[in-house]
Amino acid sequence: MPRFALKVEYDGAPFAGWQRQAEHPSVQGAIEAALAKLEPGEHTIAAAGRTDAGVHARGQVCHCDLQKDWSPFRLSEALNHHLKPLPVAIVDAAEVEGDWHARFSAMERRYLFRLVSRRAPLTLEAGQVWQVKHDLELAPMQEAARHLIGLHDFTTFRSTMCQAASPVKTLDALDIRELETDWGTEFQFRLRARSFLHNQVRSFVGTLERVGAGAWAPEDVKAALDARDRAACGPVCPPQGLYLVGVGYPDDPFQR
Amino acid sequence: MPRFALKVEYDGAPFAGWQRQAEHPSVQGAIEAALAKLEPGEHTIAAAGRTDAGVHARGQVCHCDLQKDWSPFRLSEALNHHLKPLPVAIVDAAEVEGDWHARFSAMERRYLFRLVSRRAPLTLEAGQVWQVKHDLELAPMQEAARHLIGLHDFTTFRSTMCQAASPVKTLDALDIRELETDWGTEFQFRLRARSFLHNQVRSFVGTLERVGAGAWAPEDVKAALDARDRAACGPVCPPQGLYLVGVGYPDDPFQR
Repeated sequence: MPRFALKVEYDGAPFAGWQRQAEHPSVQGAIEAALAKLEPGEHTIAAAGRTDAGVHARGQVCHCDLQKDWSPFRLSEALNHHLKPLPVAIVDAAEVEGDWHARFSAMERRYLFRLVSRRAPLTLEAGQVWQVKHDLELAPMQEAARHLIGLHDFTTFRSTMCQAASPVKTLDALDIRELETDWGTEFQFRLRARSFLHNQVRSFVGTLERVGAGAWAPEDVKAALDARDRAACGPVCPPQGLYLVGVGYPDDPFQR
Repeated sequence: MPRFALKVEYDGAPFAGWQRQAEHPSVQGAIEAALAKLEPGEHTIAAAGRTDAGVHARGQVCHCDLQKDWSPFRLSEALNHHLKPLPVAIVDAAEVEGDWHARFSAMERRYLFRLVSRRAPLTLEAGQVWQVKHDLELAPMQEAARHLIGLHDFTTFRSTMCQAASPVKTLDALDIRELETDWGTEFQFRLRARSFLHNQVRSFVGTLERVGAGAWAPEDVKAALDARDRAACGPVCPPQGLYLVGVGYPDDPFQR
C-alpha cells in the first residue's frame, strides 16, 4: 500500500478551511473526493497545517495511502482532473515511506501574510490580501516583531479554541517588508516556526497592524506577550491575507 | 461644468469589455451608473483604451463632465461607494481643463501581458494570467520581439474588426522578462506605444508564445510582419493575461 506526499495549492475563499466537515466544503474533503474517483472507498488524508476558513496555501503538504503503485506524475494529473473546477491544485507529488507523515514528520511551517494599505477598494487582489485604508509605518512594526521572535509562552497570541498541548513555542522568524505595488503599499509578513498555535499568525498581524497605525507602541507588544493573557492581544486580523507557503521536512520528499 | 480625469482599476472577468453595451455588463456602463447616482441624468464617459472582454486595467483613464465642483478626493470616494460590489475602483481623480480628453490627449499606452507556464491548473491566479502547460524559451521570444519594435505596417497583427484609420504604428517597447514565482514560470510582456490596433497585443503574444514553444523560429515573426496579411498571424491569445497598466499624457493630471 504505497504512501504519497502531495504538495497542494489552493484559494481558501470558497472553503470552510482545510478540515473535512459534514455540511461545508473543505479542501480536505475535495481532495478525498478526488482520491475516491481514482480508487473507490473511503480516503482519509493528513495535512501539515489545518488552515482556517479563507486561508490560502501555496505549499500545503498532505499524504495519502493508495492501493495502486501510481507514478507520482500520473497521480497528480489524475487528481487535478477530478478537482476541477475547484481552486485546488496538486502542484507536486512524491512516493514516501510508510512511516512518513505530512504532519508529524514536518520540522517547519512557513507562512506569508499580505496586508495592503490603500484607500480605494481592491479589485484584482480582493480576497487575497487584508486591506486597511490608513497608512502604516514599517519600522515600529519591525521593532515590535523583534519582541516575538524566539522561545516564548504565546498564550496571548493563541485562540481560546487552540488544542495544542503547550503555548510555549519557538518563533524562528517574523520578517516584514514594505513593497510599493500597482495596487498600493503592501506589507508582507513572513513567519517561520516548527509549529504554530491556532490563530497565532492572525493574532500577531492584527496586533502589529495596530503598531503600524500608531495606536500601539512597539513595547506594548512585549507587555502583551509577557501578560500571557489572551485578553491582552490586539484584534485578530481577517484570514484572506494568510498563505501557508511551505512545509519543511528533514528529507524533503519533493527534492529527492 | 467641471471636467474630471479618473484613473480606473478593474478585474475584466465579469465584463463584456470597457465599452457600454445594451445587454451586457461593461466597465463604462458601471462607472456611468455610479455617476448617475451622484448627479442624476445621462452620463457619457470617454476612455484612453477600450479594453476587450476579460481584459484588466491597473491604470485605465477616462474623463467625465459634472455639474458640481467636486473635490477630486470626494468624487473618487463617492464613485467607489456606488461601484460596490463590482471589481472596479477609482484609484485617482483630478480636475482637468474643458478641452482635456482621456483618449485624444493621450500620448502613450502601456500594457502588461502575463503568461504562466506550469503543469497544474491555476488556483489563486485563475482568470488573471494566460496559462500554457509546456515550457517556453525566453531568448527566442526576445529575439522575435525585436523585429516588431519600431515603425511598421501591423496589418498582420490587427483584428479584421479594427477601426483604426491606418495599420502603420510605432511600437516603442516590447520587453519580455522571465520570473520564477510561487505559481510557476511567469513571462511578463511589457508593451508601450502611442496607440495600439485592435487585438494587437494579443496577436503579438499569441505569436511570440509559438516562438517560445519552438513551433516558430524568431525570423518567422519577421516574415509574418512583412507579409502584411492577417492570415500570417499566429494564434490570438486569450484576454485574461492582459492589463492596461497606464496611459501617458503631456501634462499628467494625476502628477500635478
